[in-house]
Amino acid sequence: MAYFDYANGCPVDERVIEAMLPYMTDEIGNPSSVHSMGLKARKALDEARDRVSDLINGKEGDIIFTSGATEANNLAIIGYSMRNKRKGDHIIVSSIEHMSVINSCKFLQKNGFEVSYIPVDRNGVVRIEELENSIRKETILITVQHANGEIGTIQPIEEIGKIAKEYDIAFHVDATASLGKIEVDVERMGADLVTLSSNDIYGPRGVGGLFIRKGVRIQPIIVGGGQEKGYRSGTENVAGIVGFGEAAEITEEEYREEAKREEKLRDEMIERILDGIEESYLNGHPELRLPNNVNVRFSFVEGESLVLSLDMEGIYVSTASACTSKTLEPSHVLIACGLKHEEAHGSLLFTLGRGNKEEDVDRLMEALPRVVERLRMMSPLYKKKS
Amino acid sequence: MAYFDYANGCPVDERVIEAMLPYMTDEIGNPSSVHSMGLKARKALDEARDRVSDLINGKEGDIIFTSGATEANNLAIIGYSMRNKRKGDHIIVSSIEHMSVINSCKFLQKNGFEVSYIPVDRNGVVRIEELENSIRKETILITVQHANGEIGTIQPIEEIGKIAKEYDIAFHVDATASLGKIEVDVERMGADLVTLSSNDIYGPRGVGGLFIRKGVRIQPIIVGGGQEKGYRSGTENVAGIVGFGEAAEITEEEYREEAKREEKLRDEMIERILDGIEESYLNGHPELRLPNNVNVRFSFVEGESLVLSLDMEGIYVSTASACTSKTLEPSHVLIACGLKHEEAHGSLLFTLGRGNKEEDVDRLMEALPRVVERLRMMSPLYKKKS
Repeated sequence: MAYFDYANGCPVDERVIEAMLPYMTDEIGNPSSVHSMGLKARKALDEARDRVSDLINGKEGDIIFTSGATEANNLAIIGYSMRNKRKGDHIIVSSIEHMSVINSCKFLQKNGFEVSYIPVDRNGVVRIEELENSIRKETILITVQHANGEIGTIQPIEEIGKIAKEYDIAFHVDATASLGKIEVDVERMGADLVTLSSNDIYGPRGVGGLFIRKGVRIQPIIVGGGQEKGYRSGTENVAGIVGFGEAAEITEEEYREEAKREEKLRDEMIERILDGIEESYLNGHPELRLPNNVNVRFSFVEGESLVLSLDMEGIYVSTASACTSKTLEPSHVLIACGLKHEEAHGSLLFTLGRGNKEEDVDRLMEALPRVVERLRMMSPLYKKKS
Repeated sequence: MAYFDYANGCPVDERVIEAMLPYMTDEIGNPSSVHSMGLKARKALDEARDRVSDLINGKEGDIIFTSGATEANNLAIIGYSMRNKRKGDHIIVSSIEHMSVINSCKFLQKNGFEVSYIPVDRNGVVRIEELENSIRKETILITVQHANGEIGTIQPIEEIGKIAKEYDIAFHVDATASLGKIEVDVERMGADLVTLSSNDIYGPRGVGGLFIRKGVRIQPIIVGGGQEKGYRSGTENVAGIVGFGEAAEITEEEYREEAKREEKLRDEMIERILDGIEESYLNGHPELRLPNNVNVRFSFVEGESLVLSLDMEGIYVSTASACTSKTLEPSHVLIACGLKHEEAHGSLLFTLGRGNKEEDVDRLMEALPRVVERLRMMSPLYKKKS
C-alpha cells in the first residue's frame, strides 16, 4: 500500500505512544486534585506546555490545550472577537482558510460582526494590498493561515504580521498545516494567536493547542471548572497532552531533515506526474509550497473517481481537505484560486509523511497514468477532444 | 497506596487501550476521507456510537461525540437554548450541578436568558415542588444531574422527566457521575439530552458524548468541517472514540456486579468512619447514593489538611470535585445542602473504583483516625471544646 493522505490522518509516533501510556494506566491523577498524584499530572501538563511552546519559539505558559485545531481556531477567532467587540466589529480573513476558520467568521457575522474575505492569486497567495486596503478603524482581528493544507501554498505571514502590528490589530495564524513542515516562529510571524494541531506532527488526535501572546484577552467558548487558566474548561486529557508534548519535542529535533527528504519526493512526484500525464497541472504555488504537498488537476476526470480507482490498488489519496469532503461542492480553496468547477473537481491531493518512500512514488506512477487514461476514455468530453 | 479519587481520575481499562492502539498506528484514515481507510475509520466510529448508545438504551445514531463531559454539558445547555430561544428564554437548573452546567447557565444569563436555580434538601435531593413551581410559559429547558459526583446523591430523575414532558419542556440530564455506577436509561429518564463521560467508565480522557433525542435541535458551539452531523466539528478522535465504545461495552457487561462490590465497600467505609471517629458526619443521602461515593465531614479540621496528611501516607482522597478546587470557596454543593462554611471545608470525598480492595479500607482506617486526631489537637476550636 501507498498512503498519501497524511494531512488528513497521521499515525501516532511509537515514542509518543510510549510516553502516553503511563498516563492512562498509573499516573491517573487529576491535575486539579490537591494530592501528589494530582501534582504529578499538573507537572506533566506544564512540561508538555513548555515543549510545545519551545517548538514555536514561545514563552513559558503561553499555550492553551484544546481538543484539536478546529476548537483552537474557534477559540481564537470567536473568543478574541467576542471578548474585544467593544474595540470594533470588523474582521479580516483570507478566502482560502480552513472551514473551522471560515465558519467561525460566519458565526461572528450572525452575531453583529462584519467580515472581509481577502482574495488570493492563482497560486493561492493572499493579496496583501487588498488585505491592507480592507483595514478599517473597526478592524480588531486579521486571521490568515501559515500554509494551506490543501494546495500547500505558504503565505507571506511575516509581512501580514507587520501590517497587523502597524495598525494595532490582533493577528491570528492557523499553523495546522505548517507545524512540523516548515519553521513556525511566533515572534518572526508577529502573531498574537496561533493554532496548533497534535496529530499533524504525529501526536494523538483529539488534542490541539492555541498560542496566546501575553496580554491578549480572549473569552472561553467552553466553560466549567476553569481549567487552562479559565480559557478552556474540562478535565485535561493528560495522556493526550503528554503525547502532544512528546511529539513536539521529536518534531523539533527531526523535522528539518525529514522536510528535506519529503521535499525531494514531492518534487519528483510533481515532475513525474506532470511529465507522464498529459493535461495535468499543478495547483498551488510552484515554490512557496509545503514540502509534503502535491496537488494536481487532470482534465476530463473526476477527482473522486480517481480516489476510488487508486484505492482499489492500495493507493490512498484525497480529493481535497477531508473536512470539506462532506459537501458535493468543489473545494472553496481551488475556486478561490480561480479554477473552474470542473478543474477543481478534477484535482487530487497527495500529502506526504514519514512513512513515504521512493517506492511509493514508483507504485503511484505505475497506477496513476493508467487510471487517468481509463477514466478519460469513459469521458464524453475527452472523446470529443481527441 | 490506596486511591480513593476515581471520580476525578480513572485509569483506562487495559482492554480499552488494546482496542485503541490499532487506530493510532495502522488504521489512521480520516473518517471524512473517501478511500477505504477513511471508510474503515467511519465504520469504527459508528460501531462505537452504537455501543455507547446501547449502554443507555438509546437508538442508532443518537450519540454525538465530544471532547468530554464539560463540552457535552456546554453543547446541550448553550446549544439547545441558543437554538430554541424563539420558544422562550427561561431555564431551570438545580443548584448542585457541575460547574460546567452552572457556568453554561451563567453564560446564558449574560446572553438574555433567565435562569432559576432550584434548591436541594439537606441530603442534596432537588426540591421537586419548587422545580415545578418555577416553570413558566417561557421555560424551554430543565437541566438536572442524574447523580451528584461530590455527595453521591441520586436525583428523582424519572419524576422530573415526567414533569418536563407534561409541560413540553426539553430535559437535559448530566449522567457523568452515574454512568457505569447505576442504570442510565434515556427512555425511563424521559431525557432529551444526556451528557456522558468516557473516563468515568474507564475509557480514555478527552472523550465524551451527548445523547440527543431524535427531533431535538441544538446549535453547535464548535464549527468547522461539519463532523458529527454538523453538531461538533473537528477531525474525530477515532482512537479515543473507539476506546469509549469499548469501555461502554465492558461497562454494560460488568458494572452491575462491580457496583454491588463497591457498594459493600462503601457501606463498610461509612460505618467504620462514623463509628471510629467522633464528630464525623455523612454528607449526601444515606440511601439514594452512588455505590462508589463516600463524603464525610469532620468537625474542627480542614479537608485540605486531611488530604495532604493522607497523601503522605500514600492515600489519595479529595476535598470535593477537583473541578471546583481551584477556588478557595467551599463547595457550592455542600453549601446548597445547608452546610456552614466550616462544615463544608471539613469535608472529604472518597470515590471508589475497580482497583479498591478491602485492604484499602483497612489502610485508610489505620491512618484516618490518627490524622484527624492530630489535626484536631492543633485546632484552637477543638481544644476549647474539650
